[in-house]
Amino acid sequence: MASAAHTVWARKVDKKAMGSRTNTVVEAIRGRIAARALVAGDRLPSIRGLAASLGVSPSTVVEAYERLAAEGLVRARPGSGVFVARTAAPLPLPASSGHAERAIDPFWVSRQALDADPGASKPGCGWLPPEWLPTDAIRRALRKAARADEATLTDYGSSHGSLPLRRLLARQFAGEGLDIGPDAILLTASGTQGLDLVCRLLLRPGDTVLVDDPCYFNFRALLAAHRVAVAGVPMTPAGPDAARFTELAAQHRPRLYVTNSAIHNPTGASLSPAVAHRILAAASQHEMTIVEDEIFSDFEPEPSPRLAALDGLERVLRIGSFSKTLSASVRCGFIAARPDWIEALRDLQIATSFSAAGPLGAAIVHELLSEGGYRRHMDALRRRLSQARRDVGERLEALGFTLWTVPRGGFNLWCELPEGRDAAALARRALEDGVVLAPGDVFSPSHGAGTFMRFNVAQMSDERVWSALASGLAPPAASGQPAARCSPPP
Amino acid sequence: MASAAHTVWARKVDKKAMGSRTNTVVEAIRGRIAARALVAGDRLPSIRGLAASLGVSPSTVVEAYERLAAEGLVRARPGSGVFVARTAAPLPLPASSGHAERAIDPFWVSRQALDADPGASKPGCGWLPPEWLPTDAIRRALRKAARADEATLTDYGSSHGSLPLRRLLARQFAGEGLDIGPDAILLTASGTQGLDLVCRLLLRPGDTVLVDDPCYFNFRALLAAHRVAVAGVPMTPAGPDAARFTELAAQHRPRLYVTNSAIHNPTGASLSPAVAHRILAAASQHEMTIVEDEIFSDFEPEPSPRLAALDGLERVLRIGSFSKTLSASVRCGFIAARPDWIEALRDLQIATSFSAAGPLGAAIVHELLSEGGYRRHMDALRRRLSQARRDVGERLEALGFTLWTVPRGGFNLWCELPEGRDAAALARRALEDGVVLAPGDVFSPSHGAGTFMRFNVAQMSDERVWSALASGLAPPAASGQPAARCSPPP
Repeated sequence: MASAAHTVWARKVDKKAMGSRTNTVVEAIRGRIAARALVAGDRLPSIRGLAASLGVSPSTVVEAYERLAAEGLVRARPGSGVFVARTAAPLPLPASSGHAERAIDPFWVSRQALDADPGASKPGCGWLPPEWLPTDAIRRALRKAARADEATLTDYGSSHGSLPLRRLLARQFAGEGLDIGPDAILLTASGTQGLDLVCRLLLRPGDTVLVDDPCYFNFRALLAAHRVAVAGVPMTPAGPDAARFTELAAQHRPRLYVTNSAIHNPTGASLSPAVAHRILAAASQHEMTIVEDEIFSDFEPEPSPRLAALDGLERVLRIGSFSKTLSASVRCGFIAARPDWIEALRDLQIATSFSAAGPLGAAIVHELLSEGGYRRHMDALRRRLSQARRDVGERLEALGFTLWTVPRGGFNLWCELPEGRDAAALARRALEDGVVLAPGDVFSPSHGAGTFMRFNVAQMSDERVWSALASGLAPPAASGQPAARCSPPP
Repeated sequence: MASAAHTVWARKVDKKAMGSRTNTVVEAIRGRIAARALVAGDRLPSIRGLAASLGVSPSTVVEAYERLAAEGLVRARPGSGVFVARTAAPLPLPASSGHAERAIDPFWVSRQALDADPGASKPGCGWLPPEWLPTDAIRRALRKAARADEATLTDYGSSHGSLPLRRLLARQFAGEGLDIGPDAILLTASGTQGLDLVCRLLLRPGDTVLVDDPCYFNFRALLAAHRVAVAGVPMTPAGPDAARFTELAAQHRPRLYVTNSAIHNPTGASLSPAVAHRILAAASQHEMTIVEDEIFSDFEPEPSPRLAALDGLERVLRIGSFSKTLSASVRCGFIAARPDWIEALRDLQIATSFSAAGPLGAAIVHELLSEGGYRRHMDALRRRLSQARRDVGERLEALGFTLWTVPRGGFNLWCELPEGRDAAALARRALEDGVVLAPGDVFSPSHGAGTFMRFNVAQMSDERVWSALASGLAPPAASGQPAARCSPPP
């Protein structure tokens, strides 16, 4: 992609002065290497060949190759040509840096939120603050784990993951209309790692995958790491636009659709029964597999339709974890799928993690889920979040934000900015005040959410957040440009 | 590969009777689907086209397609042709089952050992029994973790992983001549997951990777999951055969070499300084990257040469974990590499696991490594293992096994079976007696170790192991065939 763009551009400017023609060739090669169209060890085109295809003189190509060699990006092997040197960069992951300057890409929120200073406020992050989570129960579970049998303390455990935890999850799922045995469940290190295993099982580079537009930004990062093409299904408050879903399925013959059906991230939408049936029908017609990430399902006041339950795990895989409800520090997630797929996923997990969810983590999660406190914790959490969504929503509306929908649960509010405001500019500016926001485009495969923002209502008690929003909104922000800290707004 | 083989075979037998010609076509297609040369949604060749290329009649192809359709493997779309149905199997991972019948493939030992009955003996497994590990210290560390700050109990932690643990590791590495800062270290969920991230960063499907022959079987499984070609470097007691390494590097231009340099798995070989320098020189000449898995380094009486230390992390990445020395249940490993690679690996880890090593696991490992008990534990473990290697070695030699080398540390002994005995047959037979062995070919990319076996000296106190070995060796085992439990030996 990058390389193609560079080549086109090269063709355009080949009438320019010698110096810039050389730059053009240098940039064309650099672009191809950055895009991994050329990788370490690949031979570069012959000098005459490239000169002809770019419409420049051979001497221009020679000069360009010499400049690239001086940078160590390529090296000449006498007699055998010019080769790309060892400089493999991951593709198509964007070049990354932890700093504010990094692009507003799918990693922007993760990196800013995970690596924020201890003092930072993180209304853009996707998790609850410790004081909203059952820390006393976690301490009790750790003290109980300290008394576990020796094997739980030291062994890898089974390749399926803890049987008691899988049995408990199977009982939970049965209560939601998904009647499966523990052999249809594989424990993983996280929901993300579960989705990664599923992608490794079902996808090949170049496949097309449908996601919601907007969707959880890390779906975009993960699918990019799998080198697949992504098409976005517009979201409605009742779930994905089923008509567009059907069109895109016919148009792209995607192998997979990845979604959150219970309290959609970032929008807070809930799947309606009618939409669920249309999605499943289209998936069946076009032989697609669906991954339903249910990480927010326990935040629902009452369960919404579940693709996995309606489909009975025929073509739907369900993934989830306990990072939002209990602890993100105890790494444990799961995949529920057809036992024949679980069987293949077990091997993939051994190959890539040897054993993903350790017995200790599984024992801690099992203890937290089975003690009666979990239900009380979630009831209290839902009440507290419902109040927080109301209060924060009103305060955002007072600042001129518009709620896209009123979510029935969870901690995210998806809001449109006041007229003319740019979410990326606001996020960059807020970062200077130690406030990490989640600008809409990180969630949007079509980059169509530049005027939207996702807010985590549980992370907005710090008044710095509100002053950063107020000052960021006051002037029409210069689109895309981070405002300089000390210069007065234009 | 599989598909090609099938096609060749098809060409050979096209003069046979109609029925078997149809089988031939069916097997050819089945092979291509199994080999993922054809995947869900792909269109099958036209009937006339395939008939011509296989030298059979169109009606034979029609019958074959109908049979495959009846199996649900393909489906015809009126007007548009015949397509592969949704049956994506992971490739090139072998089809798997937890049962004894499964092939002696790189997953054989992992699955048999991880999923063995509680009562089974596992001299084939690659870890220590709980009673050899510091369970009391782990219990103390868990009780201390129960008093940790709230963020450690519930947060994802930084995308780099716990800074205190990275600082501690950096100090350890400095003591081994590898002078790096904590920013050159990324915490992962395990050594395997660290290697997986490195492969994702540096490899593309179709690349060639060098491994040792024999090597840790899961290197083979992981590289297969990355769809790369593997070439094996013969091992010597002083490390890989440097001359062959150099030849293979020139011949295959591999991107990566993956090895254990400290107490090689499975052979117990130790890298000599001379070999280390020749390997690094060849890697530099051919622009290869090296991954040095040091999971057994703390088992060495004194450190052997380290590629990472000699190279200063220029082209070597070091990975490791605490699964062999402390606990495999607390999932925590690391990658030490150039900071620019670590930066890209952090994004890859976010994309594929969001956060791999949770703060709790890192805090537990940090506590176990920093309390003075760790040195005492490892000193005692090395003494105990040294005695066990002597005792088990003598007993194996009494049964007719030959030690390939005398390892200077660790718990593995790599042994050749008595004349004429087949390791796979012995392993299958022992499994019937509840004894999990590690037959040589699971470690060998060239399948050249069919008469070798890896023994874990810490897992052989159960007399059933010895009686299974004795009875398995008594008769010349029928090569490759599992001996039937009740039938007398031939």
